[in-house]
Amino acid sequence: MDYYVSRRVNLLRDCKGDGVDGLLITHPTNVRYLTGFTGSSGAVVLSSKLTILISDARYEEQIKEECKGVDAHIRPHTKTLPDAMAEVLAKSGLKNVGVEADHLSVSGLAGLQEKAAKLTFAPLSGKVEHLRVVKDPSELEQIKTAISVAERAFRMFVALMKETDTEKDLADAMEMYIRRAGGMRSSFAPIVATGERSALPHAVPTSRTVGESSKVLVDWGADVGYKSDLTRTLKSPFPTPPLRKTKDERTAYNFDAVYEAVRQAHEAAVKELRAGAQVKDIDAAARKALTKHSPRGVDLNDHFTHGLGHGIGLETHEAPQIRQNSETVLEVGSVVTIEPGVYLPGWGGVRIEDDYQITKDGAIRLTTLPHDPGAIG
Amino acid sequence: MDYYVSRRVNLLRDCKGDGVDGLLITHPTNVRYLTGFTGSSGAVVLSSKLTILISDARYEEQIKEECKGVDAHIRPHTKTLPDAMAEVLAKSGLKNVGVEADHLSVSGLAGLQEKAAKLTFAPLSGKVEHLRVVKDPSELEQIKTAISVAERAFRMFVALMKETDTEKDLADAMEMYIRRAGGMRSSFAPIVATGERSALPHAVPTSRTVGESSKVLVDWGADVGYKSDLTRTLKSPFPTPPLRKTKDERTAYNFDAVYEAVRQAHEAAVKELRAGAQVKDIDAAARKALTKHSPRGVDLNDHFTHGLGHGIGLETHEAPQIRQNSETVLEVGSVVTIEPGVYLPGWGGVRIEDDYQITKDGAIRLTTLPHDPGAIG
Repeated sequence: MDYYVSRRVNLLRDCKGDGVDGLLITHPTNVRYLTGFTGSSGAVVLSSKLTILISDARYEEQIKEECKGVDAHIRPHTKTLPDAMAEVLAKSGLKNVGVEADHLSVSGLAGLQEKAAKLTFAPLSGKVEHLRVVKDPSELEQIKTAISVAERAFRMFVALMKETDTEKDLADAMEMYIRRAGGMRSSFAPIVATGERSALPHAVPTSRTVGESSKVLVDWGADVGYKSDLTRTLKSPFPTPPLRKTKDERTAYNFDAVYEAVRQAHEAAVKELRAGAQVKDIDAAARKALTKHSPRGVDLNDHFTHGLGHGIGLETHEAPQIRQNSETVLEVGSVVTIEPGVYLPGWGGVRIEDDYQITKDGAIRLTTLPHDPGAIG
Repeated sequence: MDYYVSRRVNLLRDCKGDGVDGLLITHPTNVRYLTGFTGSSGAVVLSSKLTILISDARYEEQIKEECKGVDAHIRPHTKTLPDAMAEVLAKSGLKNVGVEADHLSVSGLAGLQEKAAKLTFAPLSGKVEHLRVVKDPSELEQIKTAISVAERAFRMFVALMKETDTEKDLADAMEMYIRRAGGMRSSFAPIVATGERSALPHAVPTSRTVGESSKVLVDWGADVGYKSDLTRTLKSPFPTPPLRKTKDERTAYNFDAVYEAVRQAHEAAVKELRAGAQVKDIDAAARKALTKHSPRGVDLNDHFTHGLGHGIGLETHEAPQIRQNSETVLEVGSVVTIEPGVYLPGWGGVRIEDDYQITKDGAIRLTTLPHDPGAIG
């Protein structure tokens, strides 16, 4: 049975207790997960008896290539996608249809209720997302490819970085290296933040040069269909003379000390990673290590202002979230990031992010770039 | 009054008849339009008395830079954005809050109703989108910049294209040229489709080389905050010997004849473009010209399988849609694409897309690249 068929079978099995006789899938990533369709406009009507992909003429040829065993309903450009969904549903013989409550908009549901008035709609949450938590072998291979592409790109990045490059130059270069290494594109806009700007976890690249700072934080990933997500924080390879210290060097913190604390937090989390572990315990392990290894006079955990990690797959951020206030338990076959980070205003930030496959006994580190910034390049 | 303040005042004015005493804005583009905030996670609570931007610590510094006259509510990472929205709403004193029904999900609304049980929520549609239809001078300037960046990139693209470049190489190169010309990034993944593959309006770039085909369709745009969107279809500058015709040359259609019909359709539409015109009449003018100028034996309008155009601005596709089945009337200050296209299976496609500013008396063509493919480069 091919992966797509088995995903659809599993989804229908998971919805057996929900009292629906069919499903309408509208979130593009979930449409792709269930059918292989990579276009931007589509919806799936699914039941034990039918699988109909609703799209338009732009994608007619593509659907034939990508989606085996799926019936295509190609709407004319004079009809909208919601019109076509209502039409297919009305003809389907279905009576109570589950919809994706986390993605379908309030007006989208109201429109369906009006246009397909004989049907009832049941809002369901997280059904496909839950299936996507556990990766099958084909998905794992694609994530590994996305990681390998990102790592090749990073080696180019480090090898070619020069003192006069701006953050924007470097972010653009990373985009190009990712494509050159075989990626379709970045999985998200690469973050390149120098000096004290690295204290902004989602910094937008500016015209500041790498030579003006003593450190560079880089957060990047490749999209090969599936996605990778990595972060490294480097000491600038362009040392400034001692009497001309950069702004971020004239503050109280020592790079190596902060870096070591974040590294310890990362490793402490990884020790706890395994199927059956609660995500809040993994987050807590990282925070405890961060406090323990903090330099004198500061608790770095006070400056770790985001969750510890998240699932990766067709989306850069997907289930499971690894954070304090969650009762989620890890499952065999999940792939997650671990990314403790510390952000000290005026000084900058350090984040170390890798991607891990969850197994019964622990976790397999899928990324291969060394943590020690001096060992890269 | 600054643009953001005046947008918020206009929005509240437009919602006076809706019986709400405040608004919750959750769509990121609309949050940006109303506050200037460019981060990925935020929501705005707005009334005649307050403007509160809810975000998280990742964006605390950025909000100070970007959003003047807005109160920030920074949620801790232990609380979710919906939790924080409910909290701010509960404290706001508001009673009946308008929500964005086209963007808020079914479960998002249910969650708000549960968490802020004392309030009622009214689903409103298209309120901010309607304001965004008419561009103010600052927006028009940014769109012009996005067009200028895209055009510089295209000149590099044409100048540097070589026979052995694949569609993927060229799409990646376009991304780089757009950034090199000053864009933050592409406004969408550039389409580079050669030969008969240009019959797929949303073709994904492949490893096919430009030297293997007699034509190349390029659909691209720059994102400088605001976005541009252009298409040109070029005869291959690498002519093949007459006895070694490429696959797309061995079919019945003549490139120049199809190109001229699409160009006539484009010009016929532009003649009708003006404030007060109905979009369906503009679409009809293009279709009529396409039929009239079709080569013998084919009605090219049968192969024009999408709408004629759409608004551009903060999003690549926004209101107004220019299509057959719409009662929309154009307004002064809109910026729209005109993009008739013809797709002939086995032969390929021709599309010519430019960006226009709507005025009282007509339209100003904002793009400056010539239509005649021979005149480019």
